[in-house]
Amino acid sequence: MTDAAVAFRDELVGRGLLVATGVDGLYGRGEQFEAVVEAVDRLVVEAARADAPTVLRFPPVMPRWVFERTDYLRSFPNLTGAVQTFAGDDKAHAALLAELEGGGDWSTHLEPAGVVLCPAACHPLYPMLTGRQPEGGRYFDVYGYCFRHEPAIDPARMQAFRMHEIVYVGDPDGAQAHRDRWVDRGLELLGGLGLAVEAVVANDPFFGRVGRMLAANQRDEALKLEVVTPVVAEGPTAIMSANCHRDHFGIPFAIESSTGEVAHSACVGFGMERITLALLHTHGLDAAAWPAAVRSTLWP
Amino acid sequence: MTDAAVAFRDELVGRGLLVATGVDGLYGRGEQFEAVVEAVDRLVVEAARADAPTVLRFPPVMPRWVFERTDYLRSFPNLTGAVQTFAGDDKAHAALLAELEGGGDWSTHLEPAGVVLCPAACHPLYPMLTGRQPEGGRYFDVYGYCFRHEPAIDPARMQAFRMHEIVYVGDPDGAQAHRDRWVDRGLELLGGLGLAVEAVVANDPFFGRVGRMLAANQRDEALKLEVVTPVVAEGPTAIMSANCHRDHFGIPFAIESSTGEVAHSACVGFGMERITLALLHTHGLDAAAWPAAVRSTLWP
Repeated sequence: MTDAAVAFRDELVGRGLLVATGVDGLYGRGEQFEAVVEAVDRLVVEAARADAPTVLRFPPVMPRWVFERTDYLRSFPNLTGAVQTFAGDDKAHAALLAELEGGGDWSTHLEPAGVVLCPAACHPLYPMLTGRQPEGGRYFDVYGYCFRHEPAIDPARMQAFRMHEIVYVGDPDGAQAHRDRWVDRGLELLGGLGLAVEAVVANDPFFGRVGRMLAANQRDEALKLEVVTPVVAEGPTAIMSANCHRDHFGIPFAIESSTGEVAHSACVGFGMERITLALLHTHGLDAAAWPAAVRSTLWP
Repeated sequence: MTDAAVAFRDELVGRGLLVATGVDGLYGRGEQFEAVVEAVDRLVVEAARADAPTVLRFPPVMPRWVFERTDYLRSFPNLTGAVQTFAGDDKAHAALLAELEGGGDWSTHLEPAGVVLCPAACHPLYPMLTGRQPEGGRYFDVYGYCFRHEPAIDPARMQAFRMHEIVYVGDPDGAQAHRDRWVDRGLELLGGLGLAVEAVVANDPFFGRVGRMLAANQRDEALKLEVVTPVVAEGPTAIMSANCHRDHFGIPFAIESSTGEVAHSACVGFGMERITLALLHTHGLDAAAWPAAVRSTLWP
């Protein structure tokens, strides 16, 4: 697995599709890589039109208070990206620089900046939705950079990557239907690009001892489905996930369904870098030589 | 100034152009706001074509080692966004959660994550360029999210914003010519959108006592020019900047010109959110009602 991942990464970098930065899992993107991301993204936006979603775009950082309410530190502390900044005077600045020059950890001189890196594209959305939702619920199209601290050689496991999500917020039946509908739409969209895809029950990588139970429960209740395809890992790689959150966001952000119950939510997330890598792995590193049917779907 | 800034921000949020997050300077973007950003961006890309640049896109975080070499902590420590993560075991996790529940600063339980938020779109580029540049130098088109910790009510001073940069790396004359040429191109592009623009000598907001001298030197030597236009601040707001870096990046990243001297560099940066805000301020909050000439330039 590692050999195949290293070879694939080196090929991607050699072709200028990705640019190495000296940090595992962190890459610049070349023009051809971005052209595929943009083309796939247009297909996601088109597929989402059926839901008439509200389109919102969030920056890659979000409020720390939102993060504290989502239970992320309990479930995925090791993936967290908290942001610190310097808030001292000239004297404190001199101490910071002395630490830097001495090769010490200069970040001990920093303080919380009030923001954290977005762990998922939809997390900044929920605090906006406090209160009663309309009958039938609401749909949102959100797209943005996410951060997960998991340095890896496999290029399909990036630390900074884009996730395009279609989110439903409303009642439990609507959430379940949204999730299930998008598994079908996802299989059709991604299969239509010539990828060998299937939907499987999955779980999030919950942290630690307690996390193993949370993961088992999530699988037992089939709350998370993934669309997977071979890339270079030993098993298939998830390129889309579809999740029933139940009241996980409804409770902390006081979101109500149209009837005043705690709102349920569901999201589908397309992993834009992973889809692009799956296409490059499946059809070859030169997009100009991809099968005509795939090209005409991506660039009609 | 503050009253006007508050009123403008509230109008932008009321219209759904921006979405408030509870953190000053941090906003979601509505569909109409993004449509303007994308249209302006196409004009920047078209204007850059004359330079035949290599197109690269970087994520919003970059390696900590790159950041440490750029002197940013010396010049702008207060704008820094360093990223921390959790790297402990179950026991350390319990301590982290106890701190969170007790209302303490849980980030004291974190460690450096090896990355920082990009302070400028071009910073991840320079470490790629170590070594000899071709005759005539090289041009790059980079675009990405930047972070600067300066919470402000003025919506034109965001903490997370996008900067589209055209960068030259090569010899001193080429760098100076690049900077000067782009001041003219920027005035033409932005003036062509009906903005009242002018180019002025400017300086970066260097930190502290030493910083005041650095700023004065930068102005004396006219290393930084800005294209400014009225938005809501007391004075005009910079919507584009054009900078001669001299050997500021050439030295730390060992970049050489074609003749083996230390390379010089220059960049021009378009502030995508600020340009969009200037257009909304100048032409009104409903882009559908903007002057026909502006609309046909943006959406031909």
